[in-house]
Amino acid sequence: MLLSWDQQVMMPEEGTPARSKQLSTVSTLQHDLLTDEEVGELLDAVESEALEGPEAGAVREIRREYERNRRVPRELIEEISETSSEALPVWKEAKAEDDFDAFAPILEKQIELKREYAEHIDPDRDPYEVLFEDYEPYLGLEKAEEILSDVRDHLVPLIEDIRASDVSLADPFDGTFDADVQEAVARDALSAIGYDWDRGRLDTAPHPFSTGTQFDARVTTRFDESDPLGSLFSTIHEFGHARYTLGLRDDAYGSPLGQPRDMTVHESQSRLWENHVGRSRAFWDFFLPTFTDHFDQLAGIDIGEIYQAANQVDPDNMIRVEADELTYHMHIILRFEIEKDLIAGDLDVEEVPQVWNDKMEEYLGVRPETDTEGCLQDIHWSHGNFGYFPTYSMGSVLSAQLYDQAESDLEDLEGQIRDGEFDALAQWLEDNVHAHGKRYETDDLVESATGEAYTAEYFLEYVDEKFGELYGI
Amino acid sequence: MLLSWDQQVMMPEEGTPARSKQLSTVSTLQHDLLTDEEVGELLDAVESEALEGPEAGAVREIRREYERNRRVPRELIEEISETSSEALPVWKEAKAEDDFDAFAPILEKQIELKREYAEHIDPDRDPYEVLFEDYEPYLGLEKAEEILSDVRDHLVPLIEDIRASDVSLADPFDGTFDADVQEAVARDALSAIGYDWDRGRLDTAPHPFSTGTQFDARVTTRFDESDPLGSLFSTIHEFGHARYTLGLRDDAYGSPLGQPRDMTVHESQSRLWENHVGRSRAFWDFFLPTFTDHFDQLAGIDIGEIYQAANQVDPDNMIRVEADELTYHMHIILRFEIEKDLIAGDLDVEEVPQVWNDKMEEYLGVRPETDTEGCLQDIHWSHGNFGYFPTYSMGSVLSAQLYDQAESDLEDLEGQIRDGEFDALAQWLEDNVHAHGKRYETDDLVESATGEAYTAEYFLEYVDEKFGELYGI
Repeated sequence: MLLSWDQQVMMPEEGTPARSKQLSTVSTLQHDLLTDEEVGELLDAVESEALEGPEAGAVREIRREYERNRRVPRELIEEISETSSEALPVWKEAKAEDDFDAFAPILEKQIELKREYAEHIDPDRDPYEVLFEDYEPYLGLEKAEEILSDVRDHLVPLIEDIRASDVSLADPFDGTFDADVQEAVARDALSAIGYDWDRGRLDTAPHPFSTGTQFDARVTTRFDESDPLGSLFSTIHEFGHARYTLGLRDDAYGSPLGQPRDMTVHESQSRLWENHVGRSRAFWDFFLPTFTDHFDQLAGIDIGEIYQAANQVDPDNMIRVEADELTYHMHIILRFEIEKDLIAGDLDVEEVPQVWNDKMEEYLGVRPETDTEGCLQDIHWSHGNFGYFPTYSMGSVLSAQLYDQAESDLEDLEGQIRDGEFDALAQWLEDNVHAHGKRYETDDLVESATGEAYTAEYFLEYVDEKFGELYGI
Repeated sequence: MLLSWDQQVMMPEEGTPARSKQLSTVSTLQHDLLTDEEVGELLDAVESEALEGPEAGAVREIRREYERNRRVPRELIEEISETSSEALPVWKEAKAEDDFDAFAPILEKQIELKREYAEHIDPDRDPYEVLFEDYEPYLGLEKAEEILSDVRDHLVPLIEDIRASDVSLADPFDGTFDADVQEAVARDALSAIGYDWDRGRLDTAPHPFSTGTQFDARVTTRFDESDPLGSLFSTIHEFGHARYTLGLRDDAYGSPLGQPRDMTVHESQSRLWENHVGRSRAFWDFFLPTFTDHFDQLAGIDIGEIYQAANQVDPDNMIRVEADELTYHMHIILRFEIEKDLIAGDLDVEEVPQVWNDKMEEYLGVRPETDTEGCLQDIHWSHGNFGYFPTYSMGSVLSAQLYDQAESDLEDLEGQIRDGEFDALAQWLEDNVHAHGKRYETDDLVESATGEAYTAEYFLEYVDEKFGELYGI
């Protein structure tokens, strides 16, 4: 994790060749250690006892990792890791130069390698389904498809209604908002919502991310000087990830019980803080004075304006990480469809730009003019992360379900947020989600936290209510 | 290396428990890999052929590491690594609080562990001699003692003469020198002397150091706002280390041929750039305009004054890393004597503050009033690095020998430096020292670079000439 954080945040440009070898060495060692026959013997031994509770969960997770990894040759692990490291600067330059052809060969290589990887794990199943389970091991691709199609069927007409409405939300940001001041705002926000600076730090990265352990969970953001909210929400988003990591049990460090329950749940935490807290009217009742203290030019802005500005729906935006809460999911669905076809071999790499742009037009009514703002915008495929994208939407969906339950369990959560009190919410998430680590399978964790199965219902209600009110539809 | 760089430069305070385990895991894995029987079989196989040239050197180094590591149990390696990580914050706080008693127990533990370590490697030899060879494997403790006693016998009367002289060198630094401006000066200096920013970076650390590979060699410094030269010379010093690392062959990365020839040679590179370049009149002829551009308050300073200010001898200074070129070696000799006695069991940990202060009085005529400016000032013992200190003086001695040879081989080196041309010197060092990696044993490397055996002669001539002129003695 540190080799990767450093590569994205600190490492000088020409460090790549050595870093690639370092990452590859660590992956290979990890693979060798995990797949050692002694691990299998130890697993056999503990499984012969009737395990219960947390231990049973820990053993289930190690068994799963062991079985998956045993099936993949170490040379392939090594090659994927090396290719990922080599691909990073290639992708960066291709994106900067709007040159998809420069990126295509290494993308092609990653697809082939990951297909091969999936076939080693299970030659009888759809390779994409197998890859997806690296990011969300338990909910299943079928559930993902069901949730994503519920979301699409609901959001497409909603976004069309918004486009058709004559409501235009406040957009009070003119001029330049200094990166340094934005950073100070981000730091104030992190302090206010309870980031533990003794166990974290904030840096900048071209593609914001969070990484770490329960002892040291770091966040990154980036600054766009025309948009003072972008860096703030990205910071709060990454805080949600870091807060999850920091909520894992210290004494379980190194065990599955001290590790996060994969990507759907991880993304539910970031989206909960970003959207349900950060984009709420209650949060801005609390945070607006701090925000305007930093930006003199915003002195006159009122709560109604900032709440609208934080919740603009903009179907014309082409960048996923800048997308609003609604259109975001169309960006995900587009990627989900493309990567499924790439892995299945139903789509050639060179067709990606065209298909991407066609789908953008179909779902959002806009067509990117460059691949920089099209299919080159995301880092994921350069890393070989196929199957990762759907977990973003699945996490958003889960965040609504969890938030609804927290509202039921906590007294006047909205009022607490309005008062700048975030501890009870953070503690609720820690108790119900974080502290369990990987003890439960995803669906059981959701059930244990909310009392019911994973569902899109709360998310769809939430967007209807929120955006219905904002756009008068 | 990255785990350690990050711990000293970037890591949040409470990251220590996880970092300790990470460092320990990496040490143990490294130990396991290196001591695998297969390595022994492969060594036997290659040694049965008549190897020559670089390959022979590489195999000799791997054999040496293999033999040393085979003798030390992995549990001990692990315990030393964990203790080092735990000791770092304990040392930091003890130093901040001037509380030697708080540091003593973990220092005691490190001494015991390192003694045990030495006994595993060779139970029949002086344990300190064995530990010393972790830092300087080939010159031998006897040679170190000879060189250090030559230096002491020569410097003690020279420092006394300086103390007795009525010459007082220029000391033009009054007031405050902003850390930010000092950092800009350090960056300008690094750029001027040829630091490759695409393969490096400058950060701050409480105890400046350099670390990395030929692809990514980083330097750190620290700022004292009353002293604009301290951070500059520490930066140039660390540049010397980094330039050595960057001069290793890219295509030998991962082999002993792409690794530095241990501490004496490493320190010769840092001291050569710090003292023979950075503290020379020629360097200041070149750099003074840049320096005064940054500091308005120094506008009137002339070359004579800055040269004197850069070469003040101050026997009253108590901090090793702030010491001048001459008294520095008395700080080293003191540590060398104390750590030899600690490892031999001739000195108890609780006696260290008293003995330290007594020796300071004996060698330099000053007595520290606190342990913060006495025996708690250095990080080394907290890391368990016993045997490291003497290589600092040995490196300074070697730097004079190498610089003398570079002056013979290069046309008008002084004139080049006066013109701000450092490339020929850097290339000479790369060709004669860096590019060989560990191919040669230390004495052979010195012989190959300078045509003669390692000697203190050039260093003693250099200090006589330089400080004789400065102090009129």
